[in-house]
Amino acid sequence: MTPEEFRRAGHAVVDWIADYWATLPERPVTSAAPPGTVVAALPDGPPERGEPVEAVLADLDTLVTPHLTHWQHPGFFGYFPANTSGPSVLGDLVSSGLGVQGMLWATGPACTELETAMLDWLADLLDLPKRFRSAGAGGGVIQDSASSATLVATLVAVHRASGGRWREGGVDRRYRAYTSTQGHSSIEKAARIAGLGADGVRVVEVDPETLAMSPAALRAAVEADRADGVVPTIVVATVGTTSTTAVDPLPEIGAICAEYGIFLHVDAAYAGAATVCPELRSGHAGLEYADSYCFDPHKWLLTGFDCDAFWVADRGELIEALTVLPEYLRNAATESGAVIDYRDWQVPLGRRFRALKLWFVLRWYGVEGLRAHIRSGVALAARFADRVRADDRFELAAPHPYSLVCFRLRADDAVNAELLARVNASGRVHLTHTRVAGRHTLRLAVGSPHTTKAHVDEAWTLLSAAADTLLPH
Amino acid sequence: MTPEEFRRAGHAVVDWIADYWATLPERPVTSAAPPGTVVAALPDGPPERGEPVEAVLADLDTLVTPHLTHWQHPGFFGYFPANTSGPSVLGDLVSSGLGVQGMLWATGPACTELETAMLDWLADLLDLPKRFRSAGAGGGVIQDSASSATLVATLVAVHRASGGRWREGGVDRRYRAYTSTQGHSSIEKAARIAGLGADGVRVVEVDPETLAMSPAALRAAVEADRADGVVPTIVVATVGTTSTTAVDPLPEIGAICAEYGIFLHVDAAYAGAATVCPELRSGHAGLEYADSYCFDPHKWLLTGFDCDAFWVADRGELIEALTVLPEYLRNAATESGAVIDYRDWQVPLGRRFRALKLWFVLRWYGVEGLRAHIRSGVALAARFADRVRADDRFELAAPHPYSLVCFRLRADDAVNAELLARVNASGRVHLTHTRVAGRHTLRLAVGSPHTTKAHVDEAWTLLSAAADTLLPH
Repeated sequence: MTPEEFRRAGHAVVDWIADYWATLPERPVTSAAPPGTVVAALPDGPPERGEPVEAVLADLDTLVTPHLTHWQHPGFFGYFPANTSGPSVLGDLVSSGLGVQGMLWATGPACTELETAMLDWLADLLDLPKRFRSAGAGGGVIQDSASSATLVATLVAVHRASGGRWREGGVDRRYRAYTSTQGHSSIEKAARIAGLGADGVRVVEVDPETLAMSPAALRAAVEADRADGVVPTIVVATVGTTSTTAVDPLPEIGAICAEYGIFLHVDAAYAGAATVCPELRSGHAGLEYADSYCFDPHKWLLTGFDCDAFWVADRGELIEALTVLPEYLRNAATESGAVIDYRDWQVPLGRRFRALKLWFVLRWYGVEGLRAHIRSGVALAARFADRVRADDRFELAAPHPYSLVCFRLRADDAVNAELLARVNASGRVHLTHTRVAGRHTLRLAVGSPHTTKAHVDEAWTLLSAAADTLLPH
Repeated sequence: MTPEEFRRAGHAVVDWIADYWATLPERPVTSAAPPGTVVAALPDGPPERGEPVEAVLADLDTLVTPHLTHWQHPGFFGYFPANTSGPSVLGDLVSSGLGVQGMLWATGPACTELETAMLDWLADLLDLPKRFRSAGAGGGVIQDSASSATLVATLVAVHRASGGRWREGGVDRRYRAYTSTQGHSSIEKAARIAGLGADGVRVVEVDPETLAMSPAALRAAVEADRADGVVPTIVVATVGTTSTTAVDPLPEIGAICAEYGIFLHVDAAYAGAATVCPELRSGHAGLEYADSYCFDPHKWLLTGFDCDAFWVADRGELIEALTVLPEYLRNAATESGAVIDYRDWQVPLGRRFRALKLWFVLRWYGVEGLRAHIRSGVALAARFADRVRADDRFELAAPHPYSLVCFRLRADDAVNAELLARVNASGRVHLTHTRVAGRHTLRLAVGSPHTTKAHVDEAWTLLSAAADTLLPH
């Protein structure tokens, strides 16, 4: 494809996306088609001779978009939203066009340096401790996801706990990771990948009201493990759990980690974005104890997946744990020690120029725009929670400090599951569920910049109407 | 950003990329600026108020592109190229615009099903064994890179070798991975991440001429380990090593793996793409022994990074090793068992809709176009190798079955290092180096669809002229 062919086809694809976004509100949020529908509609193989881009765009409309869950729909309230934005898409388009592979500073100096700068900008925006800035001993890097950030933190923690033997000798003792009963599934997955096994994770009890990790329970677990010859290795504390956005108490947890020499990783995948607003930073109290921290701009900061921002307080320890330097990657810049080679900060070797989408987003919105986006989400969630509170048939299942509301009908699990199924079947909204205190609970997470009062109110109207038909009169 | 604002800005960004590509041949391939140049030129933080996209595009021209290594430049011959193409960029643009997160089938049915179909298409194109198709017990998935594919293969292998205890109990014995002295650095990194340690990798000797793994040396290593109580767990065989594109003998290696019950992963990261051409499939002989296989469409198949295609023969074993299912991800489709949830096939939870770029590439080029691209690269490498062969001052350092030529001046390491530095300093081409039999060796890897005879001949002219000044007369 020549540059001129790309120019023409590129305009057509941009127009297609603009049209998709403009028509999103009218589309059903999810597809009702059964598994296998798309595969069955595709040919068995690629064409022998090439086809024009227009043919593929036409098939997008018939084969792909009718069978998607539309994450950018203003009525998408599931999981945590993964909201992108125009400037993010454009930044990523530049990244694709440049086609730079930033494994080393030398393979794309601007790719590496813009990333370092963007992570420093974000550290300022979130008011993270100074130790995470690149000007000191720390620094930030873009991971694909918080799962990978947790894995990297786990590896560095095991390396440290082993006294450095892990690099060569592997897992040679019983190392243990701690998180609360509300911690993300990626924590167990990271422990498994790191060779600690699922048994290498101890799940710590939470306060029954706040669903935040109990420091007393953590201390008891750590002491029991030490007595048992197990090495307490890493605590993953969560600011904004996936289930309910509970906030673990970092001051108390951090003090315990400091006392016992345990690596502290703070997973703020969703809620970290909120701390661009000074009034939403209370969850960061105690963050000065953390050895590493991450949040996902792709969750609530208008940046397309994949973009997890991960910081460490000691980059030397991270690099020592992960570096492998074969001859074919040796170069003068690396040997000088004056540059960052981000390949040593992550699992894969290669990497995209993902800092561009952050740069585009931060400049298009500015600090004010980002704060307005977060505040809008928090206000919409509060508006929805007010509806729930005002209706005796419903109850809130957990606090809602950010933009997620957990709620249920005052009825059994089967009725709540049916409620969820009915409102989702409308095609107008998409909510997901969790369990709180063992009970089936609905989750409404606001995240899209296109979600307005009207969409939240429509969700409430659908829920209320479904409740009318589900509850006895 | 509204859809209409996106439409206008999107056209501008597309034009910017088209102009970048059109002017690439005139740009120096690499930047001469010292470390810190880009960071120093950036402001200390984001603007308070948003800025227009045009301001960012202007800064791209002054801050970013002058300080890149231009991987898409027709004179880029370094590492293995990571070549993209217009249709790949457009497919990725659609992915960014849709903003779908495909962790589960339910979170994007078309995202999952198109990926399954594209991996089946590729399996046909490469003539992979039937066991890797989704219609049987296997199937394919897109990983970010071959590094991650190797890691996943290692995890499944340890799970199998442990008799299933690994999931809960972690690394409980001495498990060992095998690769040749020419195996990629990601194999050691995967072993380290998996908790086997660098000592968990045994590096097997190669044939001194072909640089392919010696089956006799592998057998001896396996038997010595077994006698020592170490569990031979995985062999990573390479089709097209990074250093010289050597091809390990799969029939002999596979038979040893079968005899001792060792998991066989085949890393064809670069050379796998070549097998779209029937005449370049000899390296796949013996592939029926493999438990898993990967290649990178982002290396030599016109698809932008990141796109590694990874297949397993037994998807059940893979899913068993990696799945964790928290309540908030439970859904009817998953429970039915009728769908693929790709989150269980990889390290991270979230995932982009990367199948789109493959779909766009396969349809734009068609089978004929892909084959023409590979054949062009092989022919250009042969043309360059002929120049080397015809000049007594130079020698070839290894066979060149694909599109990489390893060569050197008949002179010492210092002279060859200086030769490399001088031709790269021209700004017209970029080559990298390796060591072959302990000697400094230059690598010229052809990959870009924009690289023509003229660019390869220019590289030769520069090398020859530099040799004139470096060698005694």
